[in-house]
Amino acid sequence: MSRVATGESVLARGVRVIESFGLDDRSLTVTDIARRSGLHIATASRLIEELVGTGWLEREGRQVRIGVRLWEVVSRASSTVGLRQAAMPFMEDLHAVIGHHTQLGVMEGGEVLFVERLTAPKAAVNYSRIAGRLPLHASSSGLVLLANSPQEQQERAIGAPLKVFTDRTVRTGRELRAILAEVRRQGFAFCAGHIYPETTGIAVPVRNADQTVVAALSVIVPNDDAARSLIPALQAAGRGVTRVMSASIPGQS
Amino acid sequence: MSRVATGESVLARGVRVIESFGLDDRSLTVTDIARRSGLHIATASRLIEELVGTGWLEREGRQVRIGVRLWEVVSRASSTVGLRQAAMPFMEDLHAVIGHHTQLGVMEGGEVLFVERLTAPKAAVNYSRIAGRLPLHASSSGLVLLANSPQEQQERAIGAPLKVFTDRTVRTGRELRAILAEVRRQGFAFCAGHIYPETTGIAVPVRNADQTVVAALSVIVPNDDAARSLIPALQAAGRGVTRVMSASIPGQS
Repeated sequence: MSRVATGESVLARGVRVIESFGLDDRSLTVTDIARRSGLHIATASRLIEELVGTGWLEREGRQVRIGVRLWEVVSRASSTVGLRQAAMPFMEDLHAVIGHHTQLGVMEGGEVLFVERLTAPKAAVNYSRIAGRLPLHASSSGLVLLANSPQEQQERAIGAPLKVFTDRTVRTGRELRAILAEVRRQGFAFCAGHIYPETTGIAVPVRNADQTVVAALSVIVPNDDAARSLIPALQAAGRGVTRVMSASIPGQS
Repeated sequence: MSRVATGESVLARGVRVIESFGLDDRSLTVTDIARRSGLHIATASRLIEELVGTGWLEREGRQVRIGVRLWEVVSRASSTVGLRQAAMPFMEDLHAVIGHHTQLGVMEGGEVLFVERLTAPKAAVNYSRIAGRLPLHASSSGLVLLANSPQEQQERAIGAPLKVFTDRTVRTGRELRAILAEVRRQGFAFCAGHIYPETTGIAVPVRNADQTVVAALSVIVPNDDAARSLIPALQAAGRGVTRVMSASIPGQS
């Protein structure tokens, strides 16, 4: 992974070209890509040319984008497809009933990665987005995922510096340890104002056939007295997704 | 693109490994990938190893999958992101009101590629799915996209053999030419029983700031007398997405 550029394979360089695209980059120039990937501009240019040829990148004038063709291959075959398909009908029902953001997150690289999200035009603000990330300790989804992760990962998070978003964010290892135990006991995470003072995140676990927690289903609602009343609906939906995930054929989920 | 295997670059072979995954493949074995990509098993194995190292593929026992990491990069930066974000709130509203499949398709490689879809648990059956494809002449979305495509592409479709799904499918070039003209005149496509006898597809165009048709917004509803009454709601939603697309900064959509 960290081989010096000269010993790096062409494939690894191609990966770096594509990974130059960040969360807010719909398009980049060849120069941007060369700078971000640390490749010579001539090398970047040649790789981009080749990836445009395969349809994995698209070029419009000076702007380079991720191609629809790559999106297609990845969207239909990624490991999140089964999870998203199982969750979507329950997410749509929750969204229709609750009228606020409804989202599905998985653990990826020590953070929550949101793989699906339904928004509401007038819903409470929140930070997350599809393919966006949040720290584990700060979000209700992250707490559910972390509370059900291997002990070693929990200890690593408890020992690490914790980013503070509001005066309600979990900020010490001791607090984090206590809340993780509570999440396991209750079966949900309820985070009023942890990321944004005006909003409450509520998350429940989604399990696969082995009873392993593979995702967190969550809603982001206003931080008010009504929020707690939504917990049962979310718990029921979480059990529904778990039931569908458990029924799917191993290797096909 | 069609260089013989021996002169092909490592990057092109890596692309072939990932493109081995088809619409129904959540996972493949190394042997499957070698066979489909036409690579020697040792070569395929080495490339897979390298792609697992970058997180682009994941391996679980003998099964290889597209990695969450590749999904993340592509989902947040692909050229369809702006379109899907603009369309999603309108799709959610349509879905809530109509209660049937609501979908968003783009033209890709001479077919409709569905880039977003909301399903309904008890909705009418249909063939499409996220990252699924349908022929242009057979689907309402395809007719909208084809009717607004360059003349040359229309003539190519009119001259080609047309796959028949039901006895209502458009099956001759003459019929296709007539229906394309009708779609342009009406501003929507209404296809009762063209793909499945029990369902009607209705599609409207979505335009960008240049007034170019960039997508088709559609619903799949039961093939009955009520279907026509849904056209205005769909048209209003199509105009809504167009308005949002037109307002977004060029290069950022």
